Amino acid sequence: MATTVTAPRGMRDHLPADKARREHVLGVIRGVYAQHGFDEIETPVVEEAARLHSGLGGDNEKLAFAVMKRGLTTDDVRSAEAPLDLADLGLRFDLTVPLARFYASHRAELPSVFRAVQIAPVWRAERPQKGRYRQFVQCDIDVLGEPGQLAEIELISATTAALDALGIAGTTIRINDRRILTALLGSWGIVDPGAAERALITVDKLDKIGPEGVAAELRETTGAELPGLEDTIRSLESADWSSVADAEWLDAEAFADLLRLRDALPGADLRFDPTLVRGMGYYTGTIFEVAHPDFGYSLGGGGRYDGMIGRFLGQDVPAVGFSLGFERLVDLVTLPESAESDAVVLVYDKDVDPVRLAALKDEALRSHRRVRLERRVKNTKNQLAGLVEQGFDAFASVRADTETLEGAEFRPLS
Amino acid sequence: MATTVTAPRGMRDHLPADKARREHVLGVIRGVYAQHGFDEIETPVVEEAARLHSGLGGDNEKLAFAVMKRGLTTDDVRSAEAPLDLADLGLRFDLTVPLARFYASHRAELPSVFRAVQIAPVWRAERPQKGRYRQFVQCDIDVLGEPGQLAEIELISATTAALDALGIAGTTIRINDRRILTALLGSWGIVDPGAAERALITVDKLDKIGPEGVAAELRETTGAELPGLEDTIRSLESADWSSVADAEWLDAEAFADLLRLRDALPGADLRFDPTLVRGMGYYTGTIFEVAHPDFGYSLGGGGRYDGMIGRFLGQDVPAVGFSLGFERLVDLVTLPESAESDAVVLVYDKDVDPVRLAALKDEALRSHRRVRLERRVKNTKNQLAGLVEQGFDAFASVRADTETLEGAEFRPLS
Repeated sequence: MATTVTAPRGMRDHLPADKARREHVLGVIRGVYAQHGFDEIETPVVEEAARLHSGLGGDNEKLAFAVMKRGLTTDDVRSAEAPLDLADLGLRFDLTVPLARFYASHRAELPSVFRAVQIAPVWRAERPQKGRYRQFVQCDIDVLGEPGQLAEIELISATTAALDALGIAGTTIRINDRRILTALLGSWGIVDPGAAERALITVDKLDKIGPEGVAAELRETTGAELPGLEDTIRSLESADWSSVADAEWLDAEAFADLLRLRDALPGADLRFDPTLVRGMGYYTGTIFEVAHPDFGYSLGGGGRYDGMIGRFLGQDVPAVGFSLGFERLVDLVTLPESAESDAVVLVYDKDVDPVRLAALKDEALRSHRRVRLERRVKNTKNQLAGLVEQGFDAFASVRADTETLEGAEFRPLS
Repeated sequence: MATTVTAPRGMRDHLPADKARREHVLGVIRGVYAQHGFDEIETPVVEEAARLHSGLGGDNEKLAFAVMKRGLTTDDVRSAEAPLDLADLGLRFDLTVPLARFYASHRAELPSVFRAVQIAPVWRAERPQKGRYRQFVQCDIDVLGEPGQLAEIELISATTAALDALGIAGTTIRINDRRILTALLGSWGIVDPGAAERALITVDKLDKIGPEGVAAELRETTGAELPGLEDTIRSLESADWSSVADAEWLDAEAFADLLRLRDALPGADLRFDPTLVRGMGYYTGTIFEVAHPDFGYSLGGGGRYDGMIGRFLGQDVPAVGFSLGFERLVDLVTLPESAESDAVVLVYDKDVDPVRLAALKDEALRSHRRVRLERRVKNTKNQLAGLVEQGFDAFASVRADTETLEGAEFRPLS
């Protein structure tokens, strides 16, 4: 038949080999975060529409899938003033709005400093394109209630340990502070909050449009001449811990905080990058991003966002978060062979009695970690190749007269 | 403030202790199913609305949460003929419809007999009540493409092993066959498919309305006198493998199949129960349910449903499934202590330097499985009690002058 039956547009099914790799990566990350004293929580995949659209989600709010009210009549529909009048819930577009809601619901049951792990899917009605999905997993850790640098240290330390455990070596952490960016913009005469926000969006495009492009846009924003701006931006691009120490534009207090972080984290390769912006408008202090020399994209990032978690509570709660790009990590990690050893396949003929097959499987389970029954097909070669991908490593044949596996020959699959 | 901020109606947040217990149960079940050669897959949480409402879901279709089309205008809304015209997707209400869709999408990439595991949430817009949630996890294994009894054997064997691994002892498997029910109804003169369906709904109420109630309803359905029906039903209630062997109403072939299953599964306690119906209309052969003498509800169940998985393919695919009641299991399982040993807490004073704290945490991580930093609060007793619940077992105090944990006193938390 010509009809194609597929997963909903922009979303993916995960077949066994893919699912196994994802669960392996999830397990490693979960394990390291638990080891570092973080607590995993889970919230429903939907939140009330009014919360999702409360301004905490920035541009992502527009991408929320809306869930319709139940029991609507056609009259309800016809008298609606806008489509969203018909929706009372929505699929979450990130894990931060749900975390703020969760914290407001349960603060009394949580420790004064709460270290949260959330590993869960989010949904965005984006135009589907390569590498962008409408359902994808986010992997967030957050420290809530800790105003001091301990929060940043624990987050960066746990994340670095997770990447190590995944076998991803050679990562660096680009780090900056929103206060440093604010002072830098101030040195260019950009002090109005609206103008500063636009200017940050410009600086964030440095990778794409280069120092000349950024300088031109900033001149447009400010209306000022800003002589030599290109050179300044180039020097910012190549800045490191020592090159900026005496710069006039530097917020000395914020920079001293970053130096303390660097010294507190000898196991991580922290690189000062005064051009790091990180898009989200809600950051208030430290910001950071995981980079790897082999990839043009970041593997994760985060920062301090003190004004947001307390919004539904009506009070300020200090908060720092670090989010790993789970979907990207999955592509980089290969299943370790050792985790899959001693998995065997019993290839059986069609005429073997099922009761005997079940007994043989039980026998195999007593001496092997994992046992798959697999009916013999004509193209055995293809069949066996597929099983290697699924982590099996040896097989034995079962015929109608096989009474025991004792002495059976297990041959390697690959 | 008086405002209460809660999870959406009928849905739950999972706090750390709860989430840890859930992940433990998931891990055990996943491990056993993998060991038994089943392959985990994952599908998106939404499916196209037309598939969800294609008649495969029975009454559950009415409970689907509808996801609105993107980019609707108010005009679109006002000209809609029914609310569902505005929805193109829906949250899945079970894992069977998605499995049928998945199988149609990927059959060419799957083995001829496919053993699937799905452990994932589903959503139903039910009236919230105790023990009934609008988001809950289902835990399904299915064997697709195997017409013989090997499918039933592998499913029951893997499920029994999973329950054993969870430490839930003393379960029995009630078992029956739809063919036996059909023959039984035939012996009462109920042969019309519509009447048979209604009669099965009546028999399914035996627990609630008793033999007299069932007999009365069946007489109403058939319009026949059916003398002595109460006694027959009572004898069915107490039936076992040997008491029915010569019964006239017995479908001998189906019963012989059940006897073969019993003999093939010496590790499971299979009990023949000719009154077992299992609601879903789609079952075609064997049906089974996990019972435990301590609970009035079943811990899971399933059966053969040969007509359904191939629906989106346009051909018949033999299929048998077994679903464990995950939410009920979670309530029965306690976290094994051993899985949580060697988890320590460093209780620190407010004035300890964060850089030193981070170093002490690193030091503790080198010799302990799990380390939590916890700022000292006034009510230390409460604080420590909460940590026991989260699986920590010892703590040490860190003061401003603590330079190393060497020789530090770790005291038990409980």
